[in-house]
Amino acid sequence: MTTDRKKILSGMRPTGRLHLGNYVGALKTWVDLQDRYDCFFMVADWHAMTSEYADPSLLPGNMRDMLLDWFAAGIDPMRSVVFIQSLVKEHAELSLLLGMFTPVSWLERCPTYKDQIVQLANKEIETHGFLGYPVLQAADILIYKADIVPVGEDQLAHLEITREIARRVNFLHGGPIEQVTNRPLNPIFPEPEPWLSSTPKLFGFDGRKMSKSYNNAIYLTDSPDEVTRKTKQMITDPARVRRTDPGDPSKCNVFDYHQLFTHDKAEEMGVQCRKAGIGCIDCKKTLANSINNLFDPMRERRASLADKPGALEEIAEDGCARARAAAQNTMRILRGRLSMPEGVSFLGKPS
Amino acid sequence: MTTDRKKILSGMRPTGRLHLGNYVGALKTWVDLQDRYDCFFMVADWHAMTSEYADPSLLPGNMRDMLLDWFAAGIDPMRSVVFIQSLVKEHAELSLLLGMFTPVSWLERCPTYKDQIVQLANKEIETHGFLGYPVLQAADILIYKADIVPVGEDQLAHLEITREIARRVNFLHGGPIEQVTNRPLNPIFPEPEPWLSSTPKLFGFDGRKMSKSYNNAIYLTDSPDEVTRKTKQMITDPARVRRTDPGDPSKCNVFDYHQLFTHDKAEEMGVQCRKAGIGCIDCKKTLANSINNLFDPMRERRASLADKPGALEEIAEDGCARARAAAQNTMRILRGRLSMPEGVSFLGKPS
Repeated sequence: MTTDRKKILSGMRPTGRLHLGNYVGALKTWVDLQDRYDCFFMVADWHAMTSEYADPSLLPGNMRDMLLDWFAAGIDPMRSVVFIQSLVKEHAELSLLLGMFTPVSWLERCPTYKDQIVQLANKEIETHGFLGYPVLQAADILIYKADIVPVGEDQLAHLEITREIARRVNFLHGGPIEQVTNRPLNPIFPEPEPWLSSTPKLFGFDGRKMSKSYNNAIYLTDSPDEVTRKTKQMITDPARVRRTDPGDPSKCNVFDYHQLFTHDKAEEMGVQCRKAGIGCIDCKKTLANSINNLFDPMRERRASLADKPGALEEIAEDGCARARAAAQNTMRILRGRLSMPEGVSFLGKPS
Repeated sequence: MTTDRKKILSGMRPTGRLHLGNYVGALKTWVDLQDRYDCFFMVADWHAMTSEYADPSLLPGNMRDMLLDWFAAGIDPMRSVVFIQSLVKEHAELSLLLGMFTPVSWLERCPTYKDQIVQLANKEIETHGFLGYPVLQAADILIYKADIVPVGEDQLAHLEITREIARRVNFLHGGPIEQVTNRPLNPIFPEPEPWLSSTPKLFGFDGRKMSKSYNNAIYLTDSPDEVTRKTKQMITDPARVRRTDPGDPSKCNVFDYHQLFTHDKAEEMGVQCRKAGIGCIDCKKTLANSINNLFDPMRERRASLADKPGALEEIAEDGCARARAAAQNTMRILRGRLSMPEGVSFLGKPS
């Protein structure tokens, strides 16, 4: 990873097995980004701890399931750096340091803070750690000097805090201020740019928001039969009662799926639906095929990983080592600029 | 350090050369505590950064000067673990983790928080890092499972937060709650006890609070001549104008010093003063002697350290390594109890 390509940092909280919504919402984007960028993909276990600190017992299993899905979906550990956040200690170190540059008011005015406190009222998250969520995110991003961060709209405010923190550190420790641009001549951190992905919203097979807790999701680990069974349950245009009634694809959850997974034949499915040329049962069979076509290479990659005992550990170990090397390099530079000793050799210099 | 002795953690922010006030207020206590406890003494550079983040350039020199004073005064690196906080990365790691257990309200109601924000208004310390000062202190203490923490009265509130955090972690992760005591059967952290030292207040040689900024302090590094010169300037009972006037030791700064440094002859100095048996000039000469008697062995130890190039680095390196081993051991236990992986081996276990 000594290319001139721009760097990307992104991460997911380890919630366990991923479903199609997670795939189209984030994972597919990650897979594609690998072609153009040097990518760091992070299992955000520290972030999970901010809400799960009282009972984190599910985390290890969730991390394993999520990592398997990443690699199955095409995250390529040869090209991208895949690592576990808390195993790269420098994230905690930089978070502590950046917290000293971050006014509490920046965090309190973050729209997600108050919002989450209401939503997760049963979890007592009005803590110093949760308040500092955006500081830890800033550390995650800045420690790799990421240029670009893929975000949803709701995460823009967090990224703005990262940019503000970067500016503040640069302003205080980035050398003299250049008169024309009013910027420091020797900045330490780049100000990362958001990369807004316009991902389509995918509903569960019962028509509600796709969610693990609703039990209405198609998982990347589902077998061909499970995919078929779940697509069969999908809700179509309620006005189409008989096989001979023409349907309205714009009111059909199956059609939304076709547009994402049946590719160039999706439009034709819509045309046939409108003129009752195809029935819902056949239409769903086609969708099950489309999804299984997407899943087949994932199944192969997952099986080949499972065939090699120790392979997953080896890949993760290597990813953590590569992340650690990059993170330690940033900390060395930063400590140098802040007169913070990296070791004890400074004690040999009389003051 | 595998004894059954109780453990003590204490630290100082690296403010540079120490003066007599620092010595009687803390350092002398530390030297004495070594006989009875296993001591961890910490150069609190992270804590210094909470207020000095905008310009930390003086920190390395201050740390060096302070460490030299510690060893000169009799901190024994063979018995005690002397280390630099930020060089033991586990302090940052545990601080991040404990922050997730710490309600913001505990921190906001800490009396020193609002107080310091007013006092250091020019330093913009209303930051996430400064708000989390007591969380970092809790990490400093709990990571060594310290039983006892020497504190001044103003620090009692901070230690109470450490105890509350320990209780909360123990309650959530310390195994089943014992019915009779209502305490967890298998607590992770001890609840550290305060050790209130009743240290006398020492004024500067101009009679004001002893402070670096007032330039009225006697430093442990002062030469015999400097000690003599500074004691000569001390303010005595203003009512004693002539040599033949009797003095009132209770109104004399020199007498306060005698009580601390002239030991068994201090009372006799008071008696002589009251009956004009000794003049202020001779009285101050005696004090200079007393202080120089205290400083002489310090001067010897300092000189012997200076004679061995690399000795200070070696001692500090060794102290950091010993602190790190203890801290890593605590983190290993804690991560185990919290299902937080320590490495990637968990990936080999199917969920």
